[in-house]
Amino acid sequence: MKGNCIVAQSGGPTAVINASACGVIQEAFRHPQIAQVYAAHNGILGVLNEDIFDLRRESRKSIESLKTSPSAALGSCRHKVKSDADYGRILDVFTKHDIRYFFYIGGNDSMDTADKVARLAAQRGYEFRVMGVPKTIDNDLAFTDHCPGFGSVIKYLATMVMEAARDTESLYTADTVNVIEAMGRNAGWIAAGTALARRTNEDGPHIILLPEVPFDREAFKAKVRSYLDTIRRCVIVVSEGTKKPDGTYISEQTGDFAKDAFGHTQLGGAAQYIKSLIESEVKVKARFAIPSTIQRNGIHWASLTDSREAYMVGKRAVQLAVQGTSGKMVTLKRVSNRPYRCVMDLADLAQVANGEKLFPREWITADGFFVTKEFFSYALPLIQGDVRPTMKDGLPEFVRLEKHFIARA
Amino acid sequence: MKGNCIVAQSGGPTAVINASACGVIQEAFRHPQIAQVYAAHNGILGVLNEDIFDLRRESRKSIESLKTSPSAALGSCRHKVKSDADYGRILDVFTKHDIRYFFYIGGNDSMDTADKVARLAAQRGYEFRVMGVPKTIDNDLAFTDHCPGFGSVIKYLATMVMEAARDTESLYTADTVNVIEAMGRNAGWIAAGTALARRTNEDGPHIILLPEVPFDREAFKAKVRSYLDTIRRCVIVVSEGTKKPDGTYISEQTGDFAKDAFGHTQLGGAAQYIKSLIESEVKVKARFAIPSTIQRNGIHWASLTDSREAYMVGKRAVQLAVQGTSGKMVTLKRVSNRPYRCVMDLADLAQVANGEKLFPREWITADGFFVTKEFFSYALPLIQGDVRPTMKDGLPEFVRLEKHFIARA
Repeated sequence: MKGNCIVAQSGGPTAVINASACGVIQEAFRHPQIAQVYAAHNGILGVLNEDIFDLRRESRKSIESLKTSPSAALGSCRHKVKSDADYGRILDVFTKHDIRYFFYIGGNDSMDTADKVARLAAQRGYEFRVMGVPKTIDNDLAFTDHCPGFGSVIKYLATMVMEAARDTESLYTADTVNVIEAMGRNAGWIAAGTALARRTNEDGPHIILLPEVPFDREAFKAKVRSYLDTIRRCVIVVSEGTKKPDGTYISEQTGDFAKDAFGHTQLGGAAQYIKSLIESEVKVKARFAIPSTIQRNGIHWASLTDSREAYMVGKRAVQLAVQGTSGKMVTLKRVSNRPYRCVMDLADLAQVANGEKLFPREWITADGFFVTKEFFSYALPLIQGDVRPTMKDGLPEFVRLEKHFIARA
Repeated sequence: MKGNCIVAQSGGPTAVINASACGVIQEAFRHPQIAQVYAAHNGILGVLNEDIFDLRRESRKSIESLKTSPSAALGSCRHKVKSDADYGRILDVFTKHDIRYFFYIGGNDSMDTADKVARLAAQRGYEFRVMGVPKTIDNDLAFTDHCPGFGSVIKYLATMVMEAARDTESLYTADTVNVIEAMGRNAGWIAAGTALARRTNEDGPHIILLPEVPFDREAFKAKVRSYLDTIRRCVIVVSEGTKKPDGTYISEQTGDFAKDAFGHTQLGGAAQYIKSLIESEVKVKARFAIPSTIQRNGIHWASLTDSREAYMVGKRAVQLAVQGTSGKMVTLKRVSNRPYRCVMDLADLAQVANGEKLFPREWITADGFFVTKEFFSYALPLIQGDVRPTMKDGLPEFVRLEKHFIARA
């Protein structure tokens, strides 16, 4: 099928989401069936607003540099398409610009959007192929062994924890406990990934709090005390999604809890909650760190394995679409662990949209405060190899696309 | 003078404080006048408690690995020696173990301690030489062009800001403002250092809040709005030491402000204050990040220039002490900027102890929200070159000393 193609990125960026875009774009350039190669600026919003730019007008060097530039170079969004009118509008824009191929790099919500666009196209009899390219640091997509973005976030966050744990080790007489907050609102994969930093009992993290395990305050305090008794310090990684037994987030401060300077109820954050708990009830000084979006954009310390897979799934999506596949997301399927080998497979967009893969209970230790060796076997291959961004004057150099917008039709 | 030597580390660790220890230790091993080479565990506390370990019993490889291991491998402390009795105790311990050389790696307070020990030794007629080795990420020591530790913290934090700023750039339709908190309680050097991340008007940080500039709430809001009007986002670096015009920290929440879950007054942190201010009064969504101790231990992304200088000042302290110098701290003196060249010089411990070098007013832009080109010229040479820690299984490998403690006398 001849026509134009469009690529878009959605949701929270990762260190390697641009590697996927690069895979899509470079592969699209190779196929004569694909005339124009467009990007939607800021995900599906760019389609709705007809903010579309022409990737053939970017230099080949810029496109190649996407591999070593973090975050979403095409622009991203957190827009949930809700109305039928909006879906209609999306397809109208595609039709006007003769867009026949749509590659959406994102998580569950993006796959849902992509799926609905595909269904509407089929209803209207508009010849159209859509492929999903998986992306999420959260690693919570179903039907894939892991998600591009995950290897890099845990490689970087584990390194942060290793380094900060050494700080606590040297200063335990003053700063006895350190609490580091990991992203992951529903699934504990990222927090769990910091376990890789721990090679001996001395190394942090000593405790990992996951959303999958209801927070047991007394057991937790006892666990902290057991580390203070033995190694005189404790480094804790807490997932932002950690919940109390009643199902509310530990970071939700209600009742006696705080209002901020402007009278709003303060969402203090999971790390601050744990820090306050330790200082009040375990009676030792605690510090906390919130790496926030820093953790997911660490291309300077990204996993080469992850970056290559991110590229590969983008490339494959285009190859398959050109050959006639549609309505699928490219997945990763692990065929062996030593040596590590992954092949690519496919899942239905609709299935991916409705699935969510939580951190498996059997990979959590019996006490609920750490992960098992099985997780180490799963995660270690994903962080191997180092991406090296181009350096300039002592700092990395990232590409910014020129974004030549096309005329609205 | 023949005798034993002792080395200690104090205060907040840095990525390269171990490089200084390595310089001291490797140089001490070379001099026949120095019999035993000891380390005090946890700075001056290790002397007071007679927790002293023997560095000759560590492998040469472990000592060399200090160059690529973050934080204080000898242990650090935040102990301020106050009583004459404690100073007497320190000198008693030195006397009992025939310690004639004392190398203290630290900031102002450590230089003060070292100076007082030297004076007491002179009073008692105990032959003794003490040398200070500068260390602080804060870069606030007087009499030195810059401090080992500073180049690495700004290289890493500037990289974090570069990467996180790209996140805000791609997601500005949802997360419009990002606030990143930099360390530096009194001096704005670290926050200022993130300016290096900004190569164009598009790049963050767009605004830097320094302790040296009283926080002007209305001017700040206007500045944020001007970025929202032009580039639709704003990345702000706020020093933890930023103060209101009345001299109180912006992070001090009083009056209407929060109590935490346990009834304590919440020190919300500078970043959270700015985030809340923006959401309440500028009415856009803001995120915040607090890298905390992570920023100062980033050996995986440290400056090679900084690491080499840290090593060099440690080594020089020993060379000079052996030749008879005492009561001095080794300083760095910049002799040229292009090419960058620094030589070593000396300052009196007492003078360093009482000095504090704030960020210069003339390097702050007229509006108070950024730094000038002169600061770029000053700071850029300090972040050049990359330290590469040994890797194992996708993550760095750091040394942990065996710490063979000597018998208490």
